[in-house]
Amino acid sequence: MPELRKDPIIGRWVIISTERKKRPFDYPHVPLDDKNGASCPFCQGNESKTPPEIIALRNPETKPNTPGWWVRVVPNKFPALQIEGQLDRRAEGMFDVMSGIGAHEVIIETPDHTKELPDLEDKNLEDVIWTYRDRSVDLRKDSRFRYILIFKNKGGEAGASLAHAHSQLIATPIVPKRVVEEMEGGKAHYDLKERCIFCDIIRQEIEENMRVACENENFITIEPFAPRFPFETWILPKVHESDFTRIQKHSAASLAQILKLTLKKMNKILNNPPYNFIIHTSDCQSPFLPHYHWHIEIIPRLVKHAGFEWGSGFYINPTPPEEAAKFLKEAEL
Amino acid sequence: MPELRKDPIIGRWVIISTERKKRPFDYPHVPLDDKNGASCPFCQGNESKTPPEIIALRNPETKPNTPGWWVRVVPNKFPALQIEGQLDRRAEGMFDVMSGIGAHEVIIETPDHTKELPDLEDKNLEDVIWTYRDRSVDLRKDSRFRYILIFKNKGGEAGASLAHAHSQLIATPIVPKRVVEEMEGGKAHYDLKERCIFCDIIRQEIEENMRVACENENFITIEPFAPRFPFETWILPKVHESDFTRIQKHSAASLAQILKLTLKKMNKILNNPPYNFIIHTSDCQSPFLPHYHWHIEIIPRLVKHAGFEWGSGFYINPTPPEEAAKFLKEAEL
Repeated sequence: MPELRKDPIIGRWVIISTERKKRPFDYPHVPLDDKNGASCPFCQGNESKTPPEIIALRNPETKPNTPGWWVRVVPNKFPALQIEGQLDRRAEGMFDVMSGIGAHEVIIETPDHTKELPDLEDKNLEDVIWTYRDRSVDLRKDSRFRYILIFKNKGGEAGASLAHAHSQLIATPIVPKRVVEEMEGGKAHYDLKERCIFCDIIRQEIEENMRVACENENFITIEPFAPRFPFETWILPKVHESDFTRIQKHSAASLAQILKLTLKKMNKILNNPPYNFIIHTSDCQSPFLPHYHWHIEIIPRLVKHAGFEWGSGFYINPTPPEEAAKFLKEAEL
Repeated sequence: MPELRKDPIIGRWVIISTERKKRPFDYPHVPLDDKNGASCPFCQGNESKTPPEIIALRNPETKPNTPGWWVRVVPNKFPALQIEGQLDRRAEGMFDVMSGIGAHEVIIETPDHTKELPDLEDKNLEDVIWTYRDRSVDLRKDSRFRYILIFKNKGGEAGASLAHAHSQLIATPIVPKRVVEEMEGGKAHYDLKERCIFCDIIRQEIEENMRVACENENFITIEPFAPRFPFETWILPKVHESDFTRIQKHSAASLAQILKLTLKKMNKILNNPPYNFIIHTSDCQSPFLPHYHWHIEIIPRLVKHAGFEWGSGFYINPTPPEEAAKFLKEAEL
């Protein structure tokens, strides 16, 4: 019997359609066409093929825009938003519009073209996470920005145009709609209960232990109760914190460890799927919120979504999260 | 300079990123693999390959589940929801869940495997629309259902699994989230202005004449001001009406005409793209609303959306709607 489940945070109902359920390897996918490895702009030695670097973690004896780095941040060559200018909020008749001001940066996660994020040494992955934090802290100083969106597209089907391991950051003058909805849902719960809804979820998930994929000292990886997508996966800090940038050094190491473990498990059971992840955190203007809880959402791209799902916001998911969690938990690496 | 635009109905901001803009034919796509034309379950003569028909428009001298029909409605062989049973709303700890009760039907638009929806004779297309209405009216009588969702997936990339022209209907015990958001946005506008926001949009679009693709006596086709997708297209009745099922016969003919024209224009300039359309209408419990306005949303599937767009609800659209409207308006058929 299919089931309708409600996302407790934003109130979206999802169909868990077990009649259509597939086992993990039933989801086929093709790797990103990677013709240009030799001339890859993200490879060591090709630094001149990108715009000049913003920052890099590099051997102190080396110069910017030369080899010797292990994490490198550059402006996106084809930015979705433009850094210079004023917001110029205005009306067009009944419509609202503003200039597309923002930052669009690329975090190159390794100089090595053959490595994926979960192949990195723990320390290197921690440095990537710390770089996310550093860039966020820096960009927040720009009062035009309301939100710092950090995400990764892995594989052509997930929207990546280059195979070399990288993630992206977009600083925007608006707060993304999904995050606003999460905040509103969290606020409604907090107003009623005086508790963070994410903290409540974490407590229930640990008690029930049906949708937990893995955990460590500081973080937990769960399959959410009402996932839109098969193997949709969230990583949350166990202790309440709304603001990703307040992460501490030892906690960043812990996050690197669980992110690596989660991605390795996912790669194992889903055969290296294309995926996206995105960091959901509080907005620049009100970073400290008792009702919001930062987290990472990981979406493996396993199914072609029909337009009715785009058009209605109503999703059909063939894989129950309990089953996905079991596969992930038991994955042998 | 890219631009941020706000959808006036649900308040979602969208990036119109002109730097990345593509001309219509830059969007490649592949046709649906149609191996099984001969054994297609939707073809005339293969009626036994589907579950028994619910209704059909057919020659009165012919029997159900035999040839002689021109529009045929059957239950989906792999339904996302199940028709029998009670809703059984319940809690699972802090979570909400109910049984996946609903109807899932297929409207076969023609017995001819080689025809697409816009190839149909006007009268046949009108009958398809009238069938949408008839099935909606019938299913609304079931008090378990809150919403009747009618949509079409055309082409494999749009989620279709069969090439033969068909659309689908899902009756659900919930109102889809996007529709709820539209209703809430419409209500807020109405509370302030005592006018329907969709009626306001139609008036402004007709006056400005920058985003109108075509119109006829009863309907208008526009590119919305803040489209998530290139060539996202809406068809709206010009006179206020919240409930699709109240469509009159002459108005259904008018809708058939503009739907056919719009799809033909889209096929012409986008080279027969995969697409989805979905009818947004009021819910079963409150069909007559001064603040809601039924419409059809058409989404050609031209771009691979990155997960950050799924994850954030924040879209980057490389094609300004003014340009899309110009292409559509000028398309020579």
